Amino acid sequence: MQLHDLPTPSALVDLDQLERNAARMADRARRLGVRLRPHVKTHKCIEIARIQTDLHFGGVTVSTLAEAQAFASGGFTDITYAVPIAPQKLAEAADLNREIDALNLVIDHMDTLRAAEKFAVSRGIVLPVYIEIDCGDGRSGIDPDDDASEHLIRRLAEADALDFRGLLTHAGHAYRAHNRAEAWAVACEERNVITAFAAQLRDLGIEIPEVSVGSTPTARAIDDLTGITEIRPGNYVFYDAFQSAIGSCELDEAAFSVLATVISVHPEAGRAVVDAGALALSKDPGPTHVDPDCGFGVPVATDDLHPLPGLRITGLNQEHGTLTGPGVAALHPGTRIRIVPNHSCLSAACFDRYHVVRGTEVVDEWHPVRGW
Amino acid sequence: MQLHDLPTPSALVDLDQLERNAARMADRARRLGVRLRPHVKTHKCIEIARIQTDLHFGGVTVSTLAEAQAFASGGFTDITYAVPIAPQKLAEAADLNREIDALNLVIDHMDTLRAAEKFAVSRGIVLPVYIEIDCGDGRSGIDPDDDASEHLIRRLAEADALDFRGLLTHAGHAYRAHNRAEAWAVACEERNVITAFAAQLRDLGIEIPEVSVGSTPTARAIDDLTGITEIRPGNYVFYDAFQSAIGSCELDEAAFSVLATVISVHPEAGRAVVDAGALALSKDPGPTHVDPDCGFGVPVATDDLHPLPGLRITGLNQEHGTLTGPGVAALHPGTRIRIVPNHSCLSAACFDRYHVVRGTEVVDEWHPVRGW
Repeated sequence: MQLHDLPTPSALVDLDQLERNAARMADRARRLGVRLRPHVKTHKCIEIARIQTDLHFGGVTVSTLAEAQAFASGGFTDITYAVPIAPQKLAEAADLNREIDALNLVIDHMDTLRAAEKFAVSRGIVLPVYIEIDCGDGRSGIDPDDDASEHLIRRLAEADALDFRGLLTHAGHAYRAHNRAEAWAVACEERNVITAFAAQLRDLGIEIPEVSVGSTPTARAIDDLTGITEIRPGNYVFYDAFQSAIGSCELDEAAFSVLATVISVHPEAGRAVVDAGALALSKDPGPTHVDPDCGFGVPVATDDLHPLPGLRITGLNQEHGTLTGPGVAALHPGTRIRIVPNHSCLSAACFDRYHVVRGTEVVDEWHPVRGW
Repeated sequence: MQLHDLPTPSALVDLDQLERNAARMADRARRLGVRLRPHVKTHKCIEIARIQTDLHFGGVTVSTLAEAQAFASGGFTDITYAVPIAPQKLAEAADLNREIDALNLVIDHMDTLRAAEKFAVSRGIVLPVYIEIDCGDGRSGIDPDDDASEHLIRRLAEADALDFRGLLTHAGHAYRAHNRAEAWAVACEERNVITAFAAQLRDLGIEIPEVSVGSTPTARAIDDLTGITEIRPGNYVFYDAFQSAIGSCELDEAAFSVLATVISVHPEAGRAVVDAGALALSKDPGPTHVDPDCGFGVPVATDDLHPLPGLRITGLNQEHGTLTGPGVAALHPGTRIRIVPNHSCLSAACFDRYHVVRGTEVVDEWHPVRGW
């Protein structure tokens, strides 16, 4: 089957490019002397995770227990659930942890730590736990400068029912960078904050086996990961318009795109509509801090990822994507285009299947995990 | 089962409120003298459509052929596919049209009209067709002031293989209203533009059986639908924070919400995190034209829809929703909250199942259609 025979909207995974992206990050991790534990939330797909972990130790990062369950069933035995766990989810997580080598939990609050310890003691088990620290993003994670943080870690290190696996952080603020130089500065901050805190804790006699960082912009930008044991980038295997805008990649390195069909054209009004709307592309606003007019993804040619001139996606409704600009004149009802979405993780999650292509040939169909 | 026993994030459908919303709109349609053909894209759920069409003629509106297939299988025999059809989708649509009373197609371009006629002639069938007109939204639809529009309709009226069912429009610009008075003005425009064009065509001797309008803001605001034969609102059965902000409803009329659990709390930084992120709420920016600080939905109490004071959802990542404000001090890891999303259609589409509640009791589980 050829790409042009697919229904629309369809999620396309370009396997040649995906393999290149995976190999390059795997190689970077080796050269930087760290383990690669890719975040599979980007694609939620066993086949892609196998490519990403090839020749690496096999660990993955997930964002939901549904992903953890699916990847455990798919043969992955070392999984980090990198979202602070809700106390109500401890039982499900513990059950899964028993079935594989480790389902590492993440905690950033004393109440959750106490709940996890109490739960593990009541079951007579030991749960592997990472502590998340905030390296500047301002979302989740303990503040390493807060005295309470040291207290939390001491408490964890002394808890027999909890196996303190180490520290973990995510420099989400790297997504506010305008270019790779700024992402590099954030990557240095990510590294410096967590390694300094690890050193402070080691000075107290606390063992810190793992020091884990990760995001695609910082993983692409950083040149020295001394003191870090693993990285957890995820988006890099697909990339997207956002990563291209902030310098993590070139646009033609994107391995995920959405195939769409033009369904309405009004050249006199300078607009057209495709059948990929908010439920195919997500309403992620994209890199507006770099380009306020970025629109909702980049329209590109179907046979390669060459941007279509004079076209922007300026509006998204549920099943309508509105294109505006002089490039509309080249479109007709039935014209196929590809769209590199602003945020491939959110766009990919809209689809129940990925059509895997090499060039324009459809070579496979893969099914991501859904739900929680 | 009680609401508090559900996993999170979960999609909650409040059945008491949904029945009230459905009955009120059904009653409005009767009083206004029009048929109600609810747009089921909001929920994509057979059970909800049955409630909406109870005591009405049974027609529904869909936004994808997957919805059309599912609703046909669910016993709905009069379906309007209210998105301009791609020429490539004619065969699938025609097959479905043969199985039920009518799958009405929507066309807004001469090329598509020619393709549909050619296809129908080649199959020896007749396809039911609506022409979409643009009543001011500026998305899809022909311009009634353009001479080419009259030409398009003449051509359609003369095509034996196409059954011209009537005119259809959607006042999407009603979503730019700030209040019900402004929505009323848009609703009048929606009605006036389409009825004027229908009159113009009838003066030419062209029969216009149906004159169809529809959006939730305009359907709630309008008080006179003379000349209109049917309305196609959809969101009203759920409502959401957006509709509340522009005056279509009160917040406590929302029948769809997302149950979430607090997973991280840092009161000293004035923030917390829940396990409902962009994949549960969608990244719809909400009614920023009414309230630039609206955030990504309204956090409300679990047992009713009373807004939680001093809390806003100021950030969304894939599985993280960031809450900020003084109300964070009342939260702990494990605290449950409900969130009325900005846009219930997009949030509902994130879920594979709806937990149906009456009050806090879970009484059923329904499964929406997915994909295309």
